[in-house]
Amino acid sequence: MRDEAPDVAGTSERTRLSRRGLLGLAGAGAAGLVVGGGAGAGIALAAASAGGASGADTNARYPFEGSNQAGITTPVQDRLHFASFDLSSSATRDDLASLLKDWSAAARAMAAGKDVGSGAVPDALTYPPDDTGEALGLGPSGLTITIGLGPTVFTATDGSDRFGLRAKQPKLLQPLPRFSGDALQAGLTGGDLCIQACADDPQVAVHAIRNLSRIAFGRASIRWSQLGFGRTSSTSTSQVTARNLMGFKDGTANLKAEEPSTAESVWVQAGDDAAADWLAGGSYLVARKIRMLIEDWDHQQLGEQERVFGRDKGEGAPLSGGTEFTALDLDSVGPAGKPAIDRAAHVRLAHSSTSGAVILRRGFNFVDGNDDLGLLSAGLFFIAYGRSPEQFIAIQRSLAGHDALNEYIKHIGSGIWAVPPGASPGGWVGETLFA
Amino acid sequence: MRDEAPDVAGTSERTRLSRRGLLGLAGAGAAGLVVGGGAGAGIALAAASAGGASGADTNARYPFEGSNQAGITTPVQDRLHFASFDLSSSATRDDLASLLKDWSAAARAMAAGKDVGSGAVPDALTYPPDDTGEALGLGPSGLTITIGLGPTVFTATDGSDRFGLRAKQPKLLQPLPRFSGDALQAGLTGGDLCIQACADDPQVAVHAIRNLSRIAFGRASIRWSQLGFGRTSSTSTSQVTARNLMGFKDGTANLKAEEPSTAESVWVQAGDDAAADWLAGGSYLVARKIRMLIEDWDHQQLGEQERVFGRDKGEGAPLSGGTEFTALDLDSVGPAGKPAIDRAAHVRLAHSSTSGAVILRRGFNFVDGNDDLGLLSAGLFFIAYGRSPEQFIAIQRSLAGHDALNEYIKHIGSGIWAVPPGASPGGWVGETLFA
Repeated sequence: MRDEAPDVAGTSERTRLSRRGLLGLAGAGAAGLVVGGGAGAGIALAAASAGGASGADTNARYPFEGSNQAGITTPVQDRLHFASFDLSSSATRDDLASLLKDWSAAARAMAAGKDVGSGAVPDALTYPPDDTGEALGLGPSGLTITIGLGPTVFTATDGSDRFGLRAKQPKLLQPLPRFSGDALQAGLTGGDLCIQACADDPQVAVHAIRNLSRIAFGRASIRWSQLGFGRTSSTSTSQVTARNLMGFKDGTANLKAEEPSTAESVWVQAGDDAAADWLAGGSYLVARKIRMLIEDWDHQQLGEQERVFGRDKGEGAPLSGGTEFTALDLDSVGPAGKPAIDRAAHVRLAHSSTSGAVILRRGFNFVDGNDDLGLLSAGLFFIAYGRSPEQFIAIQRSLAGHDALNEYIKHIGSGIWAVPPGASPGGWVGETLFA
Repeated sequence: MRDEAPDVAGTSERTRLSRRGLLGLAGAGAAGLVVGGGAGAGIALAAASAGGASGADTNARYPFEGSNQAGITTPVQDRLHFASFDLSSSATRDDLASLLKDWSAAARAMAAGKDVGSGAVPDALTYPPDDTGEALGLGPSGLTITIGLGPTVFTATDGSDRFGLRAKQPKLLQPLPRFSGDALQAGLTGGDLCIQACADDPQVAVHAIRNLSRIAFGRASIRWSQLGFGRTSSTSTSQVTARNLMGFKDGTANLKAEEPSTAESVWVQAGDDAAADWLAGGSYLVARKIRMLIEDWDHQQLGEQERVFGRDKGEGAPLSGGTEFTALDLDSVGPAGKPAIDRAAHVRLAHSSTSGAVILRRGFNFVDGNDDLGLLSAGLFFIAYGRSPEQFIAIQRSLAGHDALNEYIKHIGSGIWAVPPGASPGGWVGETLFA
């Protein structure tokens, strides 16, 4: 990459730092054995030791542009970095629009496996690099960046119309109600904006949030953030069901992108909200940070664990019988005359027949180390998308009061955001709001 | 897995929960496309969407037994969960020995991709499962578990001979000296015992620490722990050099398992320490949690960043010229008459010619979310192994006083442990200490 060995004083122009250029080098160093790939769902072959920090498919690539934002019905990637941002108190409407434009430009580049910015460093003595560099040599790794706008973008916490956008506030974009048992912490709750970065390589997801945060400097700053290391939901029939940290399969009954009815459950339709037609093709994102009381859980008998979920632990079959994907039989009675699926079982209360509501889940396991008592700070970072937040609210109302699982979990963080439709070719996320 | 659908009251015996049994199911669910693998170094092919939460090679497997513990010269896996434990104040010498036996038995099973314990649940109403279950369906994923003993196992902080082991304390196993600039936090420092769990799937590494922590209940508890998501060192010539979160390649000059001199730099030799011959075949582990001041760093010009490291950012070549693996020319002078590699450059001060010391590094990038100021809580979890801790101490003394990098990093956690030799067939880690 370099022709000579300048000392710093002699440096006035540096060669390009380029992920594209370096990919070849990394591939060669790892014996170049990268097979297949492709942006779609399904199986891809990857060189396990390539790229520096990942055994994932580093070539998977999802376009940033489209009628919907990527990262929602996209097959769930393996890693998450989620960040909530607050706009600075001095930020103007123009600042917000310019931030969304800048974020979109950077997201478009990173989703393609390119550096943020021009990549050119005209004067290394004057300017920091546009890109922070830790993804050099790594492929796009299935990166998706999904941007959301919180209620406080439209109506400030003091009630003011801070950006002149209140008339366009979606009527359903309101702070979530308080649910029974909520133990929310202010530092893990809310935020003007959010970014969900998902990728098959954690370094690529972290690189995305870091560079988007850097771009926001002076306009917005991170309020809270969360890393997730293992998906707990499938959004595609091509994916096997993964396990949460309670050891149970999670998301068996999730909406799948391949099902024809999913689109109308997930995407806001034109006419849903006359004041907010800019949101058509978008969705509502609800996030909940759910701490699991892991040590309590681990001391429970298998029978109690299965009663709580309403499924068996190994196969994930409902306790009413069958295999993982067998429908629940909520009326089934066991040999002792009790319901096979307990009245308080999580699966019963979450089941759509309880409320008629469906959501697309996209959760991740998290471990934040341990707390001051030496207990594992671990759980599920729950993310759900839906055409209306009422879908989540109905399910959570059903769970919050009676779910047997509540003895072993605490909701400690929460947020809601409206997710605009995808960027048009050359356009930006949020453009329809400002049109 | 189940023949009928019992309700809880009717359950007196449950079928085995078995990772081995479930692997077939997971493979089938993911279209069964798992190619190659093998425990050795190098490239392996993996089904990117298989196993629930990983694109890694789920079949890679390293034996727990051997003359040295695995996880040291083993090619560095992609993920880390590291935990420091304190023995309970009531723990006896027998408790310590039994804990090491129990940990070894569980580690042997998990390294083979098996459940902890018997897997049989004779009475689901009375006993919790032996294994917590979140690795069901996942392969061994290259898991290694490496166990260490801290100075306080031999001499308690009050100076007492708590377990009657003081006469066997390795003379070099002493708390590390204080280094210039240390900003150590008590809650991230020290510990009687440590476990380093590395795997290519984070869920497998987390599962290991969680189950070993559970086994320790009543005898030891976690003092602090750390997750790492991307290796920053290579220990094998088969691995490409990865990048740290400052965007630079890290570990270019690391010891590699394939080099003949590595063994004598890493493993304690018989006769090194007459009082501690039980440690022959073992090593010393030093861990340092190094927080990076990411936002400061990101505002620096490329030239300053490269001056600090003494290497160029793209290729990783020394500023004295060449390519990544070209030897440093510390005497090289740039066009303006200054040293091409700055006198305070990290690479100059860390270079073995400075002190003659070499260490085997096994570090990982970490991001713990953000701090109260919204700054990224991120950095490098540094792990080094050596035949003597003096090797690390010499290098760190050289760095602590003068390294240009010190403006952008803070050492906030620290620990030292003696790592016993590997378990003999059917034996346990630490057996030589108690013999």
